[in-house]
This record gives sequence, structure tokens and C-alpha cells, in this order.
Amino acid sequence: MLVLGIDPGTAVTGYGLVRDDRTSRNGPAGMGMRLVECGVIRTRPRDPLSRRLHEIHQGIAELIARHHPDHLAVEDVFYARNVRTTLALGHARGVVLLAGETAGLPIHEFPPAEVKKAIAGTGTATKEQVQFMLTRLLRLQAAPEPADASDGVAAAVTFMLTAHVAAFGTHRNGGVPAARRFK
Amino acid sequence: MLVLGIDPGTAVTGYGLVRDDRTSRNGPAGMGMRLVECGVIRTRPRDPLSRRLHEIHQGIAELIARHHPDHLAVEDVFYARNVRTTLALGHARGVVLLAGETAGLPIHEFPPAEVKKAIAGTGTATKEQVQFMLTRLLRLQAAPEPADASDGVAAAVTFMLTAHVAAFGTHRNGGVPAARRFK
Repeated sequence: MLVLGIDPGTAVTGYGLVRDDRTSRNGPAGMGMRLVECGVIRTRPRDPLSRRLHEIHQGIAELIARHHPDHLAVEDVFYARNVRTTLALGHARGVVLLAGETAGLPIHEFPPAEVKKAIAGTGTATKEQVQFMLTRLLRLQAAPEPADASDGVAAAVTFMLTAHVAAFGTHRNGGVPAARRFK
Repeated sequence: MLVLGIDPGTAVTGYGLVRDDRTSRNGPAGMGMRLVECGVIRTRPRDPLSRRLHEIHQGIAELIARHHPDHLAVEDVFYARNVRTTLALGHARGVVLLAGETAGLPIHEFPPAEVKKAIAGTGTATKEQVQFMLTRLLRLQAAPEPADASDGVAAAVTFMLTAHVAAFGTHRNGGVPAARRFK
């Protein structure tokens, strides 16, 4: 089970590929997760928006073609600093979702508060708390860098800890999987 | 010279194909414009967002493949009713711009006020005034229907009346072409 997590943005799109190597279905949530790769797709601010969108789309499509993930987990943001930024973010998310849909991947969107809750136990967790837990869950030496890559990894891990684990009946916190499934 | 004009939206994306058949380069702006086709791409509200984006992208890509337009003119909106709607609109615009970029088309974006000014002479023109002028400019019996298709047609006509005509040195109103060229 391989999940591609993405934090979309017109300037920087972060991503993380997380594999679940659990052999037992009864292990604690998060056990057996492994970070395969993480990084960012950066676009040049002076390039036309359409070219930057094309690069983001191509970058995600290439990641999917190279790694064949089973699921796409995307951070879902309802607002940004201002209307202009919100619209621009929508453009980036649009081509990311399109890349997933074109590849036939199930797509899961998680609002930031849900990511924080799944990883650090509370929707009001700080970025540092999330990074600390992410580092522990994936048994890393340090938090994934840069920060945007880390947010992509966090989306993938959130899927592992909620929808995926719940689907196998090993969700320890009970309750309904928090992921909004769009497919 | 064939221009594909688009008014993007997640629910309804309007489009219009306008050809400039002018034989003389000195004719008045708008003379010789002809509506080739207009219509809408409708998506089902109950479908997942990613599927709707896929349909919009595919619809535009098919129009481009079928008609081979020389330019893409897209309505540029800075805001919508609320933040959620703005973000959704951004998604739709993102996949529209991507389709144009993938086809290697020059892309031109026009804010609504610029469309109104180019077609009806003032940025504060009503929808009815724009439709009336559109009908005259294209020598139609009635305004293009439905309204969303009409907005796509308006974007294409705006390009004809500003950037394109100015490029040929026949722009009667003087001044710099108002189109923001993204490529």
C-alpha cells in the first residue's frame, strides 16, 4: 500500500510517498509506515501561470507513473491569505486532482485540522508538534525537509492513520474515518 | 484567425469559437467576426470534484483538437461569492489553462470589466448591454445562449477587439492592448 500525499501550491507543491509495510493487521496505527520519498515541485514566479500549472501537473503525473501509488491524499485548504491567493491555490489544486483522476487513483482530501488531529492528536497542534510526531511515526532522524515536502508527507500519513487503517478494522481511536472520499 | 473563448466554472463552463474573416486589415474593429460554435460543458454536482475537473479538461482539450484555435481567451475572475466558491472556480480555471498550455496555445486572460469595456464601451456595462453589442458585432439573430456560453463568446470577442486588432495596427480606440498576455 503506497500513498502519495500532496500539499498543493502555485509556487511550491510538496509531496511525500509513504508505504505501509505492516505485516500484521493488528499492529498499532502507524506501525510499519515508511517514507519512500519526499520533495517539492518548485515553479518560477516569473513564468506565466499556465506554464507553472503545466509543470505542477507534469511533476505529479511523473511521480504517479514512476511509483504507481495506490491512493492520492491531498491537503484541503478552504482559504488562503487573500482572495487572489485562494484563487491561485485553487488552480494548483485543480491540476493536482486532475493528475490523480487521469491516473484513476482514489483521491482523499484532508483539511489541515484533520491532518493535525490524525498525526498529533488535536486539530490545534502546532507545526512543530506535527513534525515531531511525523518524525516518530516514520522513524526518521529529523522531520522531512523542506516544510512543504513535510506537509505532503503529513497528508499521506493522515490517510494511513484514518481511512486506510479504519478500512482494515484496526483503527484504535474508534469512530468513523475522517477522510472525505471523493471517489 | 480562430479564437476559443472560455468562461470557466466547476458546474458550467461556457465556450465560444469566434473566427475573424476580415479580408481588409483596415476595416473597423469587429467587422468580419463570425461565431463558429458556442456551448457549455456541464458537470454533475454530485460527482466528485476531481471527476468534474477531468470532464472540463477533456471537454476543452477536445474542442482544441477539433477546431485548432490560434488563441485561448479566458475570463479572469478575482473573486466569487465566497471563499469556497472562489477556490472551486480556481480549480476549474486551472484545468482550462492547463489544456491551453498543453496544446501550446497563447493564453490571454481578461477581467470581466475589461470584457465589458471592449464590447460595450464601458467597464460598468450591464449584461444586457454586452449581449446586445455581442449580437450586433457577430450579426446574430439573438444573443448566444445559454448565458454561460455567451460569456465564453464575449471573452473571444474581447481578444479580437483588443490584442489581436491592436497587433495588426487597426485598433481604432488607440491605446495599449488591454489583454494580459501570459505567454
